[in-house]
Amino acid sequence: MPDPEILEPTDAIIRVQTAAICGSDLHLYHGTIPGLLPGSVIGHEYVGVVEETGSQVRRFKKGDRVVGAFHVACGSCPMCRRDLYHQCTSGGVLGYGVAFGNLQGTQAEYARIPYADETLRRVPEELTDEQALFSGDILTTAYGAVVNSGLKPGETVAVIGCGPVGIMAVQSALVLGASRVFAVDLLKERTALAEKLGAVPVPAGEVNPVSHITRMTDGEGVDAVIEAVGGSKTIQLAFELVRGGGRISAIGVTSESTFEYPLMNSLTKDITFRIGLANIHRDIDTTLSLVRSGRIDPTVVISHRLPLEQAPEGYRLFDQRKASKVILQVT
Amino acid sequence: MPDPEILEPTDAIIRVQTAAICGSDLHLYHGTIPGLLPGSVIGHEYVGVVEETGSQVRRFKKGDRVVGAFHVACGSCPMCRRDLYHQCTSGGVLGYGVAFGNLQGTQAEYARIPYADETLRRVPEELTDEQALFSGDILTTAYGAVVNSGLKPGETVAVIGCGPVGIMAVQSALVLGASRVFAVDLLKERTALAEKLGAVPVPAGEVNPVSHITRMTDGEGVDAVIEAVGGSKTIQLAFELVRGGGRISAIGVTSESTFEYPLMNSLTKDITFRIGLANIHRDIDTTLSLVRSGRIDPTVVISHRLPLEQAPEGYRLFDQRKASKVILQVT
Amino acid sequence: MPDPEILEPTDAIIRVQTAAICGSDLHLYHGTIPGLLPGSVIGHEYVGVVEETGSQVRRFKKGDRVVGAFHVACGSCPMCRRDLYHQCTSGGVLGYGVAFGNLQGTQAEYARIPYADETLRRVPEELTDEQALFSGDILTTAYGAVVNSGLKPGETVAVIGCGPVGIMAVQSALVLGASRVFAVDLLKERTALAEKLGAVPVPAGEVNPVSHITRMTDGEGVDAVIEAVGGSKTIQLAFELVRGGGRISAIGVTSESTFEYPLMNSLTKDITFRIGLANIHRDIDTTLSLVRSGRIDPTVVISHRLPLEQAPEGYRLFDQRKASKVILQVT
Amino acid sequence: MPDPEILEPTDAIIRVQTAAICGSDLHLYHGTIPGLLPGSVIGHEYVGVVEETGSQVRRFKKGDRVVGAFHVACGSCPMCRRDLYHQCTSGGVLGYGVAFGNLQGTQAEYARIPYADETLRRVPEELTDEQALFSGDILTTAYGAVVNSGLKPGETVAVIGCGPVGIMAVQSALVLGASRVFAVDLLKERTALAEKLGAVPVPAGEVNPVSHITRMTDGEGVDAVIEAVGGSKTIQLAFELVRGGGRISAIGVTSESTFEYPLMNSLTKDITFRIGLANIHRDIDTTLSLVRSGRIDPTVVISHRLPLEQAPEGYRLFDQRKASKVILQVT
Repeated sequence: MPDPEILEPTDAIIRVQTAAICGSDLHLYHGTIPGLLPGSVIGHEYVGVVEETGSQVRRFKKGDRVVGAFHVACGSCPMCRRDLYHQCTSGGVLGYGVAFGNLQGTQAEYARIPYADETLRRVPEELTDEQALFSGDILTTAYGAVVNSGLKPGETVAVIGCGPVGIMAVQSALVLGASRVFAVDLLKERTALAEKLGAVPVPAGEVNPVSHITRMTDGEGVDAVIEAVGGSKTIQLAFELVRGGGRISAIGVTSESTFEYPLMNSLTKDITFRIGLANIHRDIDTTLSLVRSGRIDPTVVISHRLPLEQAPEGYRLFDQRKASKVILQVT
Repeated sequence: MPDPEILEPTDAIIRVQTAAICGSDLHLYHGTIPGLLPGSVIGHEYVGVVEETGSQVRRFKKGDRVVGAFHVACGSCPMCRRDLYHQCTSGGVLGYGVAFGNLQGTQAEYARIPYADETLRRVPEELTDEQALFSGDILTTAYGAVVNSGLKPGETVAVIGCGPVGIMAVQSALVLGASRVFAVDLLKERTALAEKLGAVPVPAGEVNPVSHITRMTDGEGVDAVIEAVGGSKTIQLAFELVRGGGRISAIGVTSESTFEYPLMNSLTKDITFRIGLANIHRDIDTTLSLVRSGRIDPTVVISHRLPLEQAPEGYRLFDQRKASKVILQVT
Repeated sequence: MPDPEILEPTDAIIRVQTAAICGSDLHLYHGTIPGLLPGSVIGHEYVGVVEETGSQVRRFKKGDRVVGAFHVACGSCPMCRRDLYHQCTSGGVLGYGVAFGNLQGTQAEYARIPYADETLRRVPEELTDEQALFSGDILTTAYGAVVNSGLKPGETVAVIGCGPVGIMAVQSALVLGASRVFAVDLLKERTALAEKLGAVPVPAGEVNPVSHITRMTDGEGVDAVIEAVGGSKTIQLAFELVRGGGRISAIGVTSESTFEYPLMNSLTKDITFRIGLANIHRDIDTTLSLVRSGRIDPTVVISHRLPLEQAPEGYRLFDQRKASKVILQVT
Repeated sequence: MPDPEILEPTDAIIRVQTAAICGSDLHLYHGTIPGLLPGSVIGHEYVGVVEETGSQVRRFKKGDRVVGAFHVACGSCPMCRRDLYHQCTSGGVLGYGVAFGNLQGTQAEYARIPYADETLRRVPEELTDEQALFSGDILTTAYGAVVNSGLKPGETVAVIGCGPVGIMAVQSALVLGASRVFAVDLLKERTALAEKLGAVPVPAGEVNPVSHITRMTDGEGVDAVIEAVGGSKTIQLAFELVRGGGRISAIGVTSESTFEYPLMNSLTKDITFRIGLANIHRDIDTTLSLVRSGRIDPTVVISHRLPLEQAPEGYRLFDQRKASKVILQVT
């Protein structure tokens, strides 16, 4: 692959130091996301050093260590003006094919970052690459999902799915004032990690999550549910876990185009349902601040560290669920 | 019918002065809501005078003129403690059959009001019965739906359905700071009333509401949609009208148990969908205050005034859509 | 005066079409603000057309009609990142002397606007210059003060001072859902204008505002006070008008360095007091949207229109209180 | 002292099990609060068992273990309707003299609790008396002060004063999402306890808190300050610690009637200042929920446990600062 070059005055070229494989990359790996041209670079979790900046980049200069959002946003369109950066009319996702802006990814030595001023953040000196890395994607995705659930301090939360995103959601819910967080997953080692971080484990292979959580909430159900798996099955579970007047915030990526919404039941119970890709730019400064002060430790999800050349091995392990999160050490 | 009596120390008996027929009463009229026992009194919109109070009623005394919520709530259960009065574990809807607490209704000379302290409000002296009446039901339902939509000042709103509830939603959205409110209905006289109140009329019999509203919002769609009809068809319309990152707040009563939720599309657009019966107790003081100061005029929806004895005629007119809102003058 | 030139790549030069004299300019007129160098251009309310842009200006191009904030902000510093643009570490106020960034003003044919991308907004086609003009200063100042008061829909507000800023505060409070707005001023023609816009007039030359407003709020006082005069006397009045648990939001510019805060009394009453210059960038899109849809009409305060050459006459009239708001027509 | 009796149908008599001496009781001890009649019982922190209820008490019955708010509120007046229970028009403080409703206190075997339904909460079974006790006063006071500061997750907080209330404020700020909490006190053992709970200690006898905190916040100052000492000196310190656009929330009880508010400086910096006694009823359910789930441990402040008869000794120790918090074991 040739090294990327500045194409627009708002671009920056960064030399990638640390990257990661994201669960959503598996969709590309399996070819279920169409539109990835042959020879494309994928990947969208990255920390690196600014190598070159376009003439209109004001906030960064060569040598700055930066973490970036997985999606880019112009900062100027009506959507960005509303702080809805994930709805940017000229945005896109790095390394995710033609349907998402046809941008090259970051699992490479160099990467071109469009709208660098909006997309990047300087990494605080005290933080390692790995500590900062996830603020550009899964940590801020999970944190934003909890924010979007309208969580009020003292409330209860159920997190469905304790993969890396779910684990980040557990930590985020606690920082945002949840009294109890129920961590639901079929794999016991996953709920065990959640428990270590302060959650109440709900190993769904051993207990029925609905009856278990209902009982532990005095028959009410939880105030908010974070759905972090994807697909109609876990969404329906969310509706069974939530109390009347409660909220469901879903971030699990799915390929199902519709699901049967429990309309009548929700009319009586007054349920709020939200699903949406993350708005990283809105919350990234907050998550960096919380990591910097030690209130959130995103590195707990890392299971493997491999040099970039062994990325194919990383994908294989990840796909076979032998790795929870793979770091790719680029330089 | 025998006059009602105090059954619980928290009850009050009121002498009804002014009642109304609600759209939801038609479900009972047609028998589509099961569980209404023969000889039941229906009706749940009412202004009256307190005639007698149970021994634990502290806030009202004989002679107080009051307006009451259509649903009752105990004020003490965990749901009420969270201000979720519509989710009260011992609540119910007046005159709506066994599935809703088996309470008698208010289209009668006297009515028993459970949990009087929580359910009733004193009517400010300056207000007529008709001005106060709708704060107990359709005005506060509509107002609450706009609150639930998370409307921010300066945003655009589409109201689907300009019957009495929709007209109240138009007024509420303007009071809550909407820049423009698009009023959608098939009937032109309804959108004309909405226009008189400050909305942009969208007569859906003449223009395509999706292309029309999309064009008038510079291709974006609206920030929030209030669905005030009921059923999957208008809910799907709501999804077509809302912009990325927008919110849908549905209050239309429906008998459909599910609908096809546009999951994939919502994942990309980040849509929030909420449907639920109203939480009158939460907002009734606010709507009374706004009516008292003249900022909202709920009486614009009244088309007919009939003595209680002519209630059957009122139902007939209402059912045939010859009446928009029928007031029953009881005493 | 020589025409201004691009000094920084983030600058724009605009050809001013319409300017105005602001109450705060009188402090310069009287020399009470130190640090204005001889030959300086003052003025900071302006609508114009972009004439030239620095190489890093991305959002505007020659020919765009724009309105701008009275203060400039970089958009990149930690304060701007928090949306606290009025606290920008490299910001300043146009035409307000060395203590405020030593920037030239806009009562001239051409003006240099630093940080053009952040400071300017395109004027919607439907709006005249005069309609858009005040979003850059007094309208958004007043609107922001009401936002800062934490006003909840249905609450009561007192606005102290019905000069141009106070009149804008009256309109803003109504748009933001106030049930009643009490407009307090010594001059009866000012409270009369406020009344025309929907406020309850409180001519302080004829009635005692404290006893009058206390009586009209059933002995409680108002939920929120907007202080739009400046100085300890009207601030003390605010403390007398506000109810227990209420909020005071002050924007009146003052030269008093301290005042006697009623500490003990506030401890019992739980009062919130906020004073601060406006954060235009935070709210300007909202006010433009509200003006565009006709919900706020800022032009009601204009009393005089003069060509730029007659600016000295404008200042004289304004200083002698013979003009409420003077527009300077530049081109 | 004769045992108290039911005086109003909304009263309950409780048999006190556990009480505590509050810092504010010292004002009575020293006689600086006027209006305490001879033979009065003081004290307002208590957990007990309901012994008898008035005829209108609905939510409690004999035998319920309860914790109560230090102030009582009727739940019916316009202030209570706004959730401003601390502004109740017929409220008062238990055991605090004629100026506060002339109510007897709770450092006794039995206590009369007015408005029992509103004032009391059932203690969850899992909690000891000591764990629940402080939700009725200092924990919820501190928690409410942090809520009132408008703290946003990821922000920095300074707590001035690390006595029992300050320690509760440290814990509350962390639960509410603060990234870092700076704990300021002259006594090193107090800042050491705060450090153990997660705060950054700022021993004001050794370091200058202003320069220290300014440096640790990159020259900015903190986003929010909780003032928990009382008096103009620590309030002025709060103004020196807060950044531009920041908020000060003061709960320190003071006998100074005014202080010199830094008006001009605040106008430029846009500071929000709030001082007020606590609104326990608003937040008590939340603090009980957070204690129940182990997220806050209020018992860390307890230094002494004495039988009720030794209350005089407890006051002496507390007054001489030899005790941080004294529990009185009544039965």
